[in-house]
Parts: sequence; C-alpha cells; structure tokens
Amino acid sequence: MDNDSSGRLVAALREWVANAPAGARLPSSRALCAEHGVSPVTVAKAVRTLAALGLVESRPGVGTFVRLVRTPRPSDHGWQTAALGAPHGRLSRTSGTQRAVPPDAIGLHSGYPARELLPERLVRAAITRAARTEAALTRAPADGLPELRAWFATELAAVAPVGVTPATARDVLILPGSQSGLSSIFRAVVGAGRPLLVESPTYWGAILAAAQAGVDLVPVPSGPRGPDPDDVARAFEQTGARAFYAQPTYANPTGAQWSEQLRLDVLGIVRQHGAYLVEDDWAHDLAIDTEPSPVAALDDDGHVVYLRSLTKSVSPSLRVAAVVARGPVRERILADRGATSMYVSGLLQAAALDVVTQPAWRSHLRSVRTQLRARRDLLVDALREHVPDALLEHVPSGGLNLWPRMPDGTDLAQLARECEVRGVLVAPGDEWFPAEPAGPYVRLNFSGPDPERFREAARTIAEALRSLP
Amino acid sequence: MDNDSSGRLVAALREWVANAPAGARLPSSRALCAEHGVSPVTVAKAVRTLAALGLVESRPGVGTFVRLVRTPRPSDHGWQTAALGAPHGRLSRTSGTQRAVPPDAIGLHSGYPARELLPERLVRAAITRAARTEAALTRAPADGLPELRAWFATELAAVAPVGVTPATARDVLILPGSQSGLSSIFRAVVGAGRPLLVESPTYWGAILAAAQAGVDLVPVPSGPRGPDPDDVARAFEQTGARAFYAQPTYANPTGAQWSEQLRLDVLGIVRQHGAYLVEDDWAHDLAIDTEPSPVAALDDDGHVVYLRSLTKSVSPSLRVAAVVARGPVRERILADRGATSMYVSGLLQAAALDVVTQPAWRSHLRSVRTQLRARRDLLVDALREHVPDALLEHVPSGGLNLWPRMPDGTDLAQLARECEVRGVLVAPGDEWFPAEPAGPYVRLNFSGPDPERFREAARTIAEALRSLP
Repeated sequence: MDNDSSGRLVAALREWVANAPAGARLPSSRALCAEHGVSPVTVAKAVRTLAALGLVESRPGVGTFVRLVRTPRPSDHGWQTAALGAPHGRLSRTSGTQRAVPPDAIGLHSGYPARELLPERLVRAAITRAARTEAALTRAPADGLPELRAWFATELAAVAPVGVTPATARDVLILPGSQSGLSSIFRAVVGAGRPLLVESPTYWGAILAAAQAGVDLVPVPSGPRGPDPDDVARAFEQTGARAFYAQPTYANPTGAQWSEQLRLDVLGIVRQHGAYLVEDDWAHDLAIDTEPSPVAALDDDGHVVYLRSLTKSVSPSLRVAAVVARGPVRERILADRGATSMYVSGLLQAAALDVVTQPAWRSHLRSVRTQLRARRDLLVDALREHVPDALLEHVPSGGLNLWPRMPDGTDLAQLARECEVRGVLVAPGDEWFPAEPAGPYVRLNFSGPDPERFREAARTIAEALRSLP
Repeated sequence: MDNDSSGRLVAALREWVANAPAGARLPSSRALCAEHGVSPVTVAKAVRTLAALGLVESRPGVGTFVRLVRTPRPSDHGWQTAALGAPHGRLSRTSGTQRAVPPDAIGLHSGYPARELLPERLVRAAITRAARTEAALTRAPADGLPELRAWFATELAAVAPVGVTPATARDVLILPGSQSGLSSIFRAVVGAGRPLLVESPTYWGAILAAAQAGVDLVPVPSGPRGPDPDDVARAFEQTGARAFYAQPTYANPTGAQWSEQLRLDVLGIVRQHGAYLVEDDWAHDLAIDTEPSPVAALDDDGHVVYLRSLTKSVSPSLRVAAVVARGPVRERILADRGATSMYVSGLLQAAALDVVTQPAWRSHLRSVRTQLRARRDLLVDALREHVPDALLEHVPSGGLNLWPRMPDGTDLAQLARECEVRGVLVAPGDEWFPAEPAGPYVRLNFSGPDPERFREAARTIAEALRSLP
C-alpha cells in the first residue's frame, strides 16, 4: 500500500537505523535527497516519521541522530482528565460483593452460591455436547435460540392462572445475563432523566444499571413483606413514573416474598397508572420453603417486564438470561440489545438449554433446596446464638441471603474491616440502598463455601461488634 | 407466606371454583362470611382477587359466577404507546446484513465469513477442553482472564516500533464482542450530546451504537486511502470533539488501509487535540496482500483506544473481543462494562484463548488468507466482466468486502429487491453512511458461501441493473 516516495524513504532509513549504532548521525538532508532522488520536503517528512516512531531524534542546527536511550518512558496520561471530563453517574468500579476471598477467610459477602451448589456434571456434559452442534460455529438469532425462548415461556406459562393468556416464545428475548437486561430495560423503557420506582433496599446491580442509564431513582420503602401498596401508588402519582423495578420473590437483600394479595395489588396499581412492573425473578431456582409465583404469570397486557437468569442456578459461565416482554416494549428492548451486543453466543444458549431440559435438572433443584435450607438454618441459628444484638427481622423462604440489622449506631465500614482482619467477609448493607440507608444492615450469604464454619463466622462477627468503639 | 384470612379464603374459593361447573354461582357474601368466619370486607377482597385471576366474574346486583369462557382474549397493548413515548434515537431493529439467506439464494450481503473459513476443528476441540476447566463453573474477573488479556497485549506489542512502550495485560479489558465495546466506549469516552468524528462511510454497527449512546456524529469523508488528515484536523477544530472512530485497516465497507504516513498524521492530529482515536481493528485476522499495522502500536500516551474482536476469525459463537486502553480511560470503560454486564463468560474466554494459542491457528490464518484472496479475485473478475457499469474504485488488501459504486441515479433499495427476486442478496450501501450517502454504493461480501456461483451472482446483478427504470 505504502509505495509513495516518502514511504520508500522511510523504509530505507529504518533499515539504515537498524544497522547503525546508537548515537550515529544520519546523512544530511542534501545527501539523502541525492542518494534517493527525492525532494528536501520528502526527506523532512521521512525524518519526522522516524522521530515519531522513536527511532531518531533531531537536534536543531546539529543534525539527526539514532536514539541513544530506548528505555520505556513513564506514561503521561494527564491529558485524559480534560478529554474525559467528570463521570456522568455514580459508577463505582466494582461492588464489594465481587471481591475475591483470601485463603482461609470465610466469605459471606458474595452474591453467588458456592461451587457445590451448581450442577457441575450437567454443565460440563452440556458444554461438551454443545461443542458438537451447529451452535458452536454459527451466529445466533438476535432474539435468541427459539427452543430456549420457548423454554422460558413455558416455565412462566406453567404457573399462569386460568383466564390469563400465557406468554409464548414470541414474547421472549435471550440476554447475556440479567445485568445486561437491566441496562437495556432501564434505557429502553424508562430513559435518561425519567423516574423509576425501586424498592429500598434493592439489588445494587439495579442501582448501578440505573445510574448508567441516567434514570432518576424513586425509592419506595420495602421490608420483610415487600412494599406497602399505598406507598407504591403514591410514588406513581407524585412522580408520574411509568415503571417500578422490584424483586417480588426472595428479594435481594431482604429475602421478602410478596403475598398473593400484594402481587395483585401492585399489578392493579401498575395497570391503573399505565406503567410497567420490571419484575426481576433472580431467585426463581433458589426456593426453600415456598414456591416462586411470578407477578408476570398474572399479566397478559404487557404490564410486567419479566427478567429471569440462569447464571446463579446453572453456572456463572453459562451467562444466559431472558426477558419476557409483551407488546411494543419487547421491540424497544430488542432494538437496544441490537445496538449493544447484536446477539448472545449460541454456544452458551445451547448449553444452558441442555442443562435445564435434562431430567437430572429437577432432582438437582430439589437437592439445592435441601442444601439451601440447611445452610440458612445453620447461619440463622449461629447468629441467634452468638450475635444476639443482630436483629433478624425475617427468615427468608428462598434466595441466598440473610439481612440482619446491627445495633443502631454501628459503623458498618468499620465493622466490615474488623470482621475482615479476623477472617470473615461481610457486605455492609449501604450498597443496597438507593438513598441513605434505613439502618445499619449487613448482608450475609448463606450459600457460600464452608457452612461448617458458620458458627465460627458468627462468633467473629460478635467479636468484631464488641471491638467497635 | 400467605396465611392471613383473605389468603385462606382465596385458597378455599379457588378449590370450590375448580370443582364447580362453568357458570355456577358463588355462595352469597353473607353465606361465605358465616362459613369461613370472616368479615364482608374480606369476602369482597377475595372475590376481587378471583376476578383478577380470571376465575370468576361479578355481575352487579346479580351475583358472582364461575367464568364461562376461558378462551384467550386479544391482547391490548395500546397503553404502551404512552408509557414508552417516542424512541430517542434511530435504532433500526436489525441491519439488513443480518438477514437469513433463503435456500438456493447467493448471499453477498452478510458481514460474516462462511463456515468453511472458520477453524472448525480448533473451535470444537477448544470448547470441549474448556468444558473441563474451572472456567466452566466460575465467575471470570470483571476485566477478563489474565492470560487472554496478555495474549491481546502481546499481539499488539509484537508490532510496536522501538521507542514505544508497548501495552501490557494491565491495559486490556475483555468484552463480549466488539459491539458491546463500541457501546461502552462511546458512552464512557464521548457521552450523550457530545461530538464524535467518524469516517463516512463507516461500519453501520458503530453508527447504531453511537445513536444508542446519544452521541452526535461528525462525518469525515473517507475513501480508498482513508480520510484526508486535513479534514480530520478541521473537524476536530470546528467541533471540539475529543474522539475519532475509525477503521484504519481494511475498513468496512471501503476496504481502505491507511498508509504509514496517514497513521502517523492522524495520530499526531489526535495528540494535538488532546483526543482519542478509537481504532476498530475488526479485520486484523483477515489480511490478504498486506500486513495489518495498528495505529495503537505507535502510541503509548493512551491516545488510541484499540478494539479487536475474535468473533469473525474464530467463531461467531466464541464472542470475545478486547479493548486496549491506557490511562484513566480504561477505568472509565471498565466502570461502564461493570454496570452493563459485570463480566464475560469465562468459558468463552478460555475456549477463544485455546484456539489462538494452538500452533494450528497460524496455519489456519495462512489458509484463510489464500482463500480470501481467491474469493476476492473471483468476485472482482466477475464484476469487471459482467457488471462493467459498477465502478470498483479499490481492490481491498484484506477484509471481507467489495464496495462498488453503481451508476449514478441507481435506486439501491429497488436494485436490492430486483437482485433478491433473482436469488442474490446484496447490501445497499446507505446503512454505512452516517448522513446522506455520497453515492449509490453496494457492499458485496466475497467471503460468503458458494464462491463458485460468483459469476452467476454478477450476471444477476447486471440483469437487475438493466431491469431498473
């Protein structure tokens, strides 16, 4: 491509420089013009090129020399401050829940279940099978593999009451994880500068996605029974919001499951305000004492935009989620997904579908239920025995977390540090509040590794509490 | 959970309804109060719940009846129009390049290479091996697997000239495909309402990502040799832009590869304006006659944000890309990625790394080069022979596409339709222009299936051209 005279001269001089000792002086411009049959302009341009490449340096009035020192120079990125400007939202780098666990520490801070709660054999076999399919080498459709979309639709249709037209595969979009779904839904359904109701506390990833999408959060207090419908109605009326993001089943962090009455009440309020309920059914596969009963199953007017992920129940590596959205809202979300990522790896979709359609998947879910119950009860007992000052307002019927309230005035950041130096990681509750925290809560994941060390962890938390001033 | 009196009554009545014939009348409110020991308010609430579930209907003054007709009712999504408002950008649903090919048709419209150009055996073996690793069951770090990050850095460092401190694994972020990268970079580096220079024509996916991010596109004319540096400088001066998105190597759609002089000139201009060059090295593995020579290799001040994807050369299913960004800009992009998708499937990362570190990967790339050359030459010859009216300003030295200009006044949409009814899919060039098209171009992918039918395709295009009014 580069066959103009300047390019040829640069190539010739690069070769010359490569064979010359450091500090050697280049022939004069006049000599180079004569030797290569080019103009002084061309020589000057070529020398600038070599200088830009770091090969030579020019000393005005003296000459041009092969560069002496070729050591890396310290990078100067100061100019970027002006180019980037101030960040537009509160996008913290990563959540504390994503920190790695030091060896020998007990990790109660993470948002994921331990390895032993995953269907390891099913996952490995499914990936191996998917490696042999067409999905390994082809582009998946923009809205996902039809069979996987049908599976998500069927899961929801199975719990739809008589009289409600259930969602179909047509209403489903496959996503590369539910965080991507939250981003797209908040951008497509709400939009920058517009209000979005959220439970408070609520999932920190949703707070983050909302900040990135530039939507204005309107917190609605929520506790062990979910939000008060009057609060929800009032927030809609006062703000003119068109959407409410909530986790009606085993909410993260509170563990609340909405009663049937509350599900119907909130659906009614949402309908009345011509609005959407963005239902994040994150813990659908993590039930313990009750059955998940999505609000989306009660709705056939498209008022519920339903999000379900397989990341936590199948494998964090088979990052596949689905949104069920009916009517124009699905197209709006699909357009956002197209601009954001075009399609989801067909390999991940094929493998995830393989896992959840194996007969062993159902027995795996039953085993997870038993293990979650045992772990939850262990941690509850340990807390009640060793940390009587921690108030457990609610024992969740599913999900992965306890949400105890520490004594009033507890400095959570310091508590977390005091726990950490003693080898226990806990997640201060502040991250789950869209505004000021309602109290000094911590989130404790009972699905992590080492349940046999829960008593030790509880004693450590008690000790850390006592060490605070 | 639902053990209040209303909940108990709903449960009892659901059972009653389930055993009653359609049209049966519910016991009166008074009878229900007596039977269940509840208040009339509770009964009314329970009946409303049953009605919301679609199980009964109330006829005022008559009574409440088990619903007769349980057929699906037509969905009414009209209310969503008000809730969603007008869309904020030009987000077309999907590009014409993503259409499926009907049986027997010749697809020259797609953006992807044919199956036979992919390293099928390497991909299947790599996935099978990855299924056995830890990556299949664990969460990957937010910025990607360290080994894969190191591989991308090394690829770039290998072509860095003396005197330039090459990028390292620390500067790399792994992404789930380059489209996600464009979205994040445009949001994080440019931001809504701020200007971004782009070549015109340029990759349609970048236009789409920019529209979604709400950035204002500033087109800079670009042809077979890339843009004129004076145009680039002027656009920076006039708009105060801080970024220029470009494809300096085998640009999509023009096929242009920037000369070394142009690379240095643009880098100098970008430096002078304290700005970023967003270099999309999409065709790095798709060279034919020349070697890719990224601008990013010349830069160690962080002025180039470099994007490279393995989707087209490894497999569309191993959707893995990387951004190399030095200085604070990397943190800014990482924060956006965190809010958008948290992390990329470790399975995909491990499999992609496996493929590109096999000795057979290099020989595969050599074979792809040979095949691309043969296909390109076939299509060029066919066009020159059969479609003399199509002006081929440039025969690209790499990439997947030809970009012929049709006779002035050609109605591209109609040409595409006339081709399609005759069994050939072409991509009208309008999609690649951020503003009005500079001429009636079409993009023809020479890497699709059936190269032995390229002559037939060319004759069909000629016939379609003749059929236009």
